[in-house]
Amino acid sequence: MKQIEDRPISVIDHFDRFTIVFDISISIIGGLIVHQLIPMLKEKFIKAQLWGYDLNKRNSREVKVAESQGVIAAGIFLVLMFIMIAVVFAEHLHPEGVFPNHKFVEYLAALLSICCMVLLGFADDVLDLRWSVKLLLPLFASLPLLLVYFANYHSTTIILPKPVRPYLGQQWNLGILYYVYMSMVAVFCTNAINILAGVNGLEVGQSIVIACSILVFNLIELQGANSEEHLFSLYFMIPFIACTIPVLIRNWCPAEIFVGDTLCYFAGMTFAVVGIIGHFSKTMLLFFIPQIINFLLSVPQLFKFIPCPRHRLPRLDPDVNKLNPSIVEFKKKDLKLLGWLMLRFFSITKFIRYREFTNNDNEIMISTTNFTIINTVLCWCGPLHEETLSRILMLIQIVFGSLLTFFIRYYLVTFFYDS
Amino acid sequence: MKQIEDRPISVIDHFDRFTIVFDISISIIGGLIVHQLIPMLKEKFIKAQLWGYDLNKRNSREVKVAESQGVIAAGIFLVLMFIMIAVVFAEHLHPEGVFPNHKFVEYLAALLSICCMVLLGFADDVLDLRWSVKLLLPLFASLPLLLVYFANYHSTTIILPKPVRPYLGQQWNLGILYYVYMSMVAVFCTNAINILAGVNGLEVGQSIVIACSILVFNLIELQGANSEEHLFSLYFMIPFIACTIPVLIRNWCPAEIFVGDTLCYFAGMTFAVVGIIGHFSKTMLLFFIPQIINFLLSVPQLFKFIPCPRHRLPRLDPDVNKLNPSIVEFKKKDLKLLGWLMLRFFSITKFIRYREFTNNDNEIMISTTNFTIINTVLCWCGPLHEETLSRILMLIQIVFGSLLTFFIRYYLVTFFYDS
Repeated sequence: MKQIEDRPISVIDHFDRFTIVFDISISIIGGLIVHQLIPMLKEKFIKAQLWGYDLNKRNSREVKVAESQGVIAAGIFLVLMFIMIAVVFAEHLHPEGVFPNHKFVEYLAALLSICCMVLLGFADDVLDLRWSVKLLLPLFASLPLLLVYFANYHSTTIILPKPVRPYLGQQWNLGILYYVYMSMVAVFCTNAINILAGVNGLEVGQSIVIACSILVFNLIELQGANSEEHLFSLYFMIPFIACTIPVLIRNWCPAEIFVGDTLCYFAGMTFAVVGIIGHFSKTMLLFFIPQIINFLLSVPQLFKFIPCPRHRLPRLDPDVNKLNPSIVEFKKKDLKLLGWLMLRFFSITKFIRYREFTNNDNEIMISTTNFTIINTVLCWCGPLHEETLSRILMLIQIVFGSLLTFFIRYYLVTFFYDS
Repeated sequence: MKQIEDRPISVIDHFDRFTIVFDISISIIGGLIVHQLIPMLKEKFIKAQLWGYDLNKRNSREVKVAESQGVIAAGIFLVLMFIMIAVVFAEHLHPEGVFPNHKFVEYLAALLSICCMVLLGFADDVLDLRWSVKLLLPLFASLPLLLVYFANYHSTTIILPKPVRPYLGQQWNLGILYYVYMSMVAVFCTNAINILAGVNGLEVGQSIVIACSILVFNLIELQGANSEEHLFSLYFMIPFIACTIPVLIRNWCPAEIFVGDTLCYFAGMTFAVVGIIGHFSKTMLLFFIPQIINFLLSVPQLFKFIPCPRHRLPRLDPDVNKLNPSIVEFKKKDLKLLGWLMLRFFSITKFIRYREFTNNDNEIMISTTNFTIINTVLCWCGPLHEETLSRILMLIQIVFGSLLTFFIRYYLVTFFYDS
């Protein structure tokens, strides 16, 4: 594909530095606006029946907590990005220059995918949509993104790690499979944050940890060969962090507001688009290691190998105001072989804890903690106050999401790839 | 700006014909899906408190009517457009070709603006936002559109009509004012349909009339010099009409559903983007003549020169099941000079009907019909059944919106411009 830009690639110039400073400035203003808007609009949300009870609190049934506050952050984020686009491309706004349409499409496709997911998330909060819709719509929303990828790069070749090269060759052209992979990244990211949820501050906290990790990664890579792509990602991450911090402040334990599916989808799709367009979808997926582990751990219940209750959140012990892992009970004879193997595997690896007992009808019953990382943490650490639990989960995100990724990306990788 | 496309402009080729047929096919499927989804999702909307009473009916307080059903049409429209984008640009998906990014940005910016407005409309339906937000957000949402316009055309020169040329010259370069004008078109279109509303079938009916007029206009112009731009508009109008017809069927009197602000914003922004990108914003505005007249007629009440009640909808006379114009009463001495002049002007031009009377405190009162076209029609035709009123308003839209526009555009214009 022809390069039709009028400045050399991979040089962070004076104008880029200006736009970064500008981005930070308007992001701070945007963050302050979100901070002001949330208390102002809270009543409107409650009036519109967008509220829930905070079940992990002693007086849970007394206070209505406003839901879907993520839509405020997302709305301001979109406005900031519209302004940013105008500024980033203002440089090219002289009639004689050649407008870098190939860059412009990336911003537009990214924002279109994000905006669609915000709409979907908000509709989900209001209408409580079906699972199939949640899986299908990110697929459609990622279509423009894939087209942009094709138009601008259309490279579907992956370089294989050194150990397998003698058998499989130096590189593989995945062709259409690469696009399937990228769609899957979009679907996975949009839903991953939604699955690891249910404790005050968790959804937005993990989103901010991931966003900050991406930011650091972009800053490191900004001096490298693909600085344009990391600059692109940077322009998205700065306002994202600024707009979500006020949400975290009010969503942190004890939560004054809930973030809703809106925030989960908004965050997930934002990460997916910068990963895809920024060309670091593999590193991006590494930032999601805790979410991936949580997903794998959830598989037995999601696919009904083991009975799955409507809610798998921890249970509050009101006497000590601490959370215990939630339990599901079922007859042992209802368990298929595969379910039994999964139960044993996750029990041996200490992700769950189960016990057998005999009920009044003399049937052998199984009582197991639910298959989520949140319950696993409670199995390991014993009953915890909700805020302590959130802190530990944030720590897991930082250690196994961010630090491990940087270790893999900048140290381990040297053994598998040429630098 | 350089033309970087690999086929000549202004020729409708074999591939374009294929995409039109494909567009029609998926639009029919999309329309059928909307038709199926509305009754399926109705209960979900009512459960989410998205419902209202149909005040112009005898048994109005007995039936909950689902609101904001426009979001279903908009959602399916967006999915159809994502598929269309993939197909329209599939032609260019061979690695050796040059991808027409300058065309691609137009589709993406258009969809981004539309998607933003759908989100705003739905948020408005759920949260009941303030007027300032409704005016401000379309402005931001139109930013990418203006950038695209700049990048692809950056012509801000208007050709003046022949009669004024001796005094003002052949053409004027409006410069930045042209962009201000285009933003105003976006703000006007998104809100225009929302203002002329309140009778079963009116919002979606007028949208479909306008969309069909645009469609006919595009088909006429498809053989002309700017066929690419009219093709672009066509690709948007076909799925738009297909997705909104099922909404009209169920919103027509007696309404089974309401369309909500979502549909008004969705329709308005769709028209604005095709008008701007398709380069026919002036013709587009002509299609809105009834809305413009309604807006001008509303000015005295919108800007409080004359008292404005919360609702200006017609009133039902339950005995005969017909609608009467709604009335607002106020003291004559509260009326400022400007308000009095406006009252007299619209009374002489027969848009409103007012009378003076003396109240119990011996003050002179004024009782006037509210300043909307809907009330004007009822002043002219006497009490009407709601369906008859809708039909007359549709007829006004067809005659003064569509037919008059075509008359101006293809006949009158020859006196003012060279062909």
